[in-house]
Amino acid sequence: MSLSDLKRAVWQANRVIVDAGLVVLTWGNASGVDRGAGVLVIKPSGVAYDDLSPDDMVAVDLETGDHEGPLRPSSDTPTHLHLVREFPQIGGVVHTHSAKAVAWAQAEREIPCFGTTHADHFHGPVPVTRRLTGVEIRDAYEHRTGVVIAERVRQGGPDALKVPAALVAGHGPFAWGATVEKAVDNAVALEAVAAMALDTLALRADCGPLDRTLHDKHFLRKHGPGAYYGQDADG
Amino acid sequence: MSLSDLKRAVWQANRVIVDAGLVVLTWGNASGVDRGAGVLVIKPSGVAYDDLSPDDMVAVDLETGDHEGPLRPSSDTPTHLHLVREFPQIGGVVHTHSAKAVAWAQAEREIPCFGTTHADHFHGPVPVTRRLTGVEIRDAYEHRTGVVIAERVRQGGPDALKVPAALVAGHGPFAWGATVEKAVDNAVALEAVAAMALDTLALRADCGPLDRTLHDKHFLRKHGPGAYYGQDADG
Amino acid sequence: MSLSDLKRAVWQANRVIVDAGLVVLTWGNASGVDRGAGVLVIKPSGVAYDDLSPDDMVAVDLETGDHEGPLRPSSDTPTHLHLVREFPQIGGVVHTHSAKAVAWAQAEREIPCFGTTHADHFHGPVPVTRRLTGVEIRDAYEHRTGVVIAERVRQGGPDALKVPAALVAGHGPFAWGATVEKAVDNAVALEAVAAMALDTLALRADCGPLDRTLHDKHFLRKHGPGAYYGQDADG
Amino acid sequence: MSLSDLKRAVWQANRVIVDAGLVVLTWGNASGVDRGAGVLVIKPSGVAYDDLSPDDMVAVDLETGDHEGPLRPSSDTPTHLHLVREFPQIGGVVHTHSAKAVAWAQAEREIPCFGTTHADHFHGPVPVTRRLTGVEIRDAYEHRTGVVIAERVRQGGPDALKVPAALVAGHGPFAWGATVEKAVDNAVALEAVAAMALDTLALRADCGPLDRTLHDKHFLRKHGPGAYYGQDADG
Repeated sequence: MSLSDLKRAVWQANRVIVDAGLVVLTWGNASGVDRGAGVLVIKPSGVAYDDLSPDDMVAVDLETGDHEGPLRPSSDTPTHLHLVREFPQIGGVVHTHSAKAVAWAQAEREIPCFGTTHADHFHGPVPVTRRLTGVEIRDAYEHRTGVVIAERVRQGGPDALKVPAALVAGHGPFAWGATVEKAVDNAVALEAVAAMALDTLALRADCGPLDRTLHDKHFLRKHGPGAYYGQDADG
Repeated sequence: MSLSDLKRAVWQANRVIVDAGLVVLTWGNASGVDRGAGVLVIKPSGVAYDDLSPDDMVAVDLETGDHEGPLRPSSDTPTHLHLVREFPQIGGVVHTHSAKAVAWAQAEREIPCFGTTHADHFHGPVPVTRRLTGVEIRDAYEHRTGVVIAERVRQGGPDALKVPAALVAGHGPFAWGATVEKAVDNAVALEAVAAMALDTLALRADCGPLDRTLHDKHFLRKHGPGAYYGQDADG
Repeated sequence: MSLSDLKRAVWQANRVIVDAGLVVLTWGNASGVDRGAGVLVIKPSGVAYDDLSPDDMVAVDLETGDHEGPLRPSSDTPTHLHLVREFPQIGGVVHTHSAKAVAWAQAEREIPCFGTTHADHFHGPVPVTRRLTGVEIRDAYEHRTGVVIAERVRQGGPDALKVPAALVAGHGPFAWGATVEKAVDNAVALEAVAAMALDTLALRADCGPLDRTLHDKHFLRKHGPGAYYGQDADG
Repeated sequence: MSLSDLKRAVWQANRVIVDAGLVVLTWGNASGVDRGAGVLVIKPSGVAYDDLSPDDMVAVDLETGDHEGPLRPSSDTPTHLHLVREFPQIGGVVHTHSAKAVAWAQAEREIPCFGTTHADHFHGPVPVTRRLTGVEIRDAYEHRTGVVIAERVRQGGPDALKVPAALVAGHGPFAWGATVEKAVDNAVALEAVAAMALDTLALRADCGPLDRTLHDKHFLRKHGPGAYYGQDADG
């Protein structure tokens, strides 16, 4: 994929998260990676969505973090960079302050898997990070945010696509995927699942998690070698 | 109705459930039946709604389940097929992951009839299926989903249009009707009723069901030989 | 106002309640009255909103209830007629199944006045009717619905515009006003107030009503001889 | 900025709060100030948003409160005037009855800072005013509303932009900013934060406030001399 195509894909992703209702004001950013070219492309910082064109997307060097061009990249860039560096499966990252996912993050509760909607996207509960320490907040805060996410993801195993999202305690959701488009899908699914889980608890405060067999069934019919959902599946 | 007309009706139904806010990403599918032609028409699997045209709708043989054409039918097709085969009154089926109905399905609570909005469409509570067993999940899962729905519907009597919807435990809603248009109406009504019932319980945790006489009155003024609602009614 | 102008105003009102999100499917109807001409104009029964033109609005004789033209009036017409006959101040009636107001009606709780949003439109709590008896449901149900509303309104005094709305137990909201436009405003305000009151109780379960002096202040700055809100006010 | 430009900015602000879903019917108004010209520009009272043009915005003398032109200014003008007179940092004020913020105002609970979404805009909880006395309600009510807001804001210190919003008890939110555009942003942020905080309490009734170090970090990376968020930041 050319840099120009990646910028268009990232620009498009930043529009979709707005259209899907995940973003208020400028509280959201999506990035995509080209590992061959060693570049991460991300939204510029604090610019209104309506004013953005694909060319405004900022290319950041994957190794050095330096960026080209006149616009400064999103202030959350160090978080995106850390996730992409730590997990080779990740091709795109999305951060929003979508309302229901933020509520779970603020309450510091992981989102249990209560149903197949969750299971279709996340092969386990959506975890919450630990809080950052005072030192971590004061020094390289956005980088440290990536560190606590990565730390929490690794507790679930080496494959970051198994549960492609996490809630940063007291902050909000990050989602990712093999491409920036899949990262957007996971961010959308996360917000839907967060809303459904809230209402589920209102109806049954002690609701248990979905049966493990059914959880596996739904995740695996969409992901992995035996997948049979969609037009590209092998099954 | 020609196959081409049925495809257009099913395509339209798949658009209406999106416009009505019942569908996130590609989580929804509607089908319609032509019993004379022995065919069920349904949305293809995992294709974005914006990219669909009426011609993309997939015709499936009602008896064999085989499909024509290049696109694979929705992975939920065996569920639709089973409902249509079991209940001769059904002319269309709609499956979504609409948020409030999913919450009831995840909490495994049937939706009581708390008011006339419910009574206008459902002549009793909207039931929840039992959970599928491990064996049912592993073998022919989507077919088995249809089986547990049919099993639950039959407990309410032979007429599947009396309460034209059910919640699959830990999964979400299926709705149906004499036509695909009526199935869509019932899916829309179900989501509205699920939301209202949640808020009703927040206001009165021990709320009892609607008076039976009033429930009958509302259902029967819209359905059956004495109906007097709408322009085609006899009453 | 000519009959043609009244039909246009009623058609417009029926569109506004849809655009304001108060109506799902065809669950809503608005009517307007011309007392000089002895006519009530109302939406036809069970027709999709998109298919309606001003000419489709049905004129009903205020005294006899007979209607002209090919389309049957809304099945709720007897309720509208009764309210209009009982209260000379009423020039328009709106009935919807708006979600939050329905929840209060289903829980059979009146909506307390918790704030100035409520006070601006309703000079007291929005009341709930008693339940209809079996006899009332079986015989002239829609007329009897008007009777129980009128009965409840009269308990608050002779002026139906003091609190221009009521919740029918187990059913939903009716709102009214001096014109059909004001009836629509009151229906919109009612749904907003119902939603706010639900959330207020979630934050303070024992919340008391707004201070009476403030309630009076807000209602009276908009209504009556001392009003000073808007461009037409005298104050 | 010319008077004509200010009127356009204020008109635009009044449209944005509608498009952002903060305004039902005509329940909202935004104003902007030109201190050099000694003028506050505000929406006229009770006019439908669709009918407004920039020229309809009403210029009010900052000192005398007199207005020019045929349209009467918003009935809430004395509240805006008082805030602008009391706090030299304020360049714009927004008042709405946005649903979730109103719920907190009606419950008379301040909105705690549960997360970084809140911290990005408000450097502390969003406070609630005391109730107005009977005398204050009867005499110069709208002016007195400004007085109780200013009184509450001063309890937090002299800088009104530290926490640029307050909830008037039993009424609803006022927000402000250095410009009318920033006031709108703060009104939008306030409603989002009010919704998230409600859901946070549903998930954790005893949720504590965000860590102070993190709160400071987020507020200060957007505001003040060390800010590094957005394209104009120094950091």
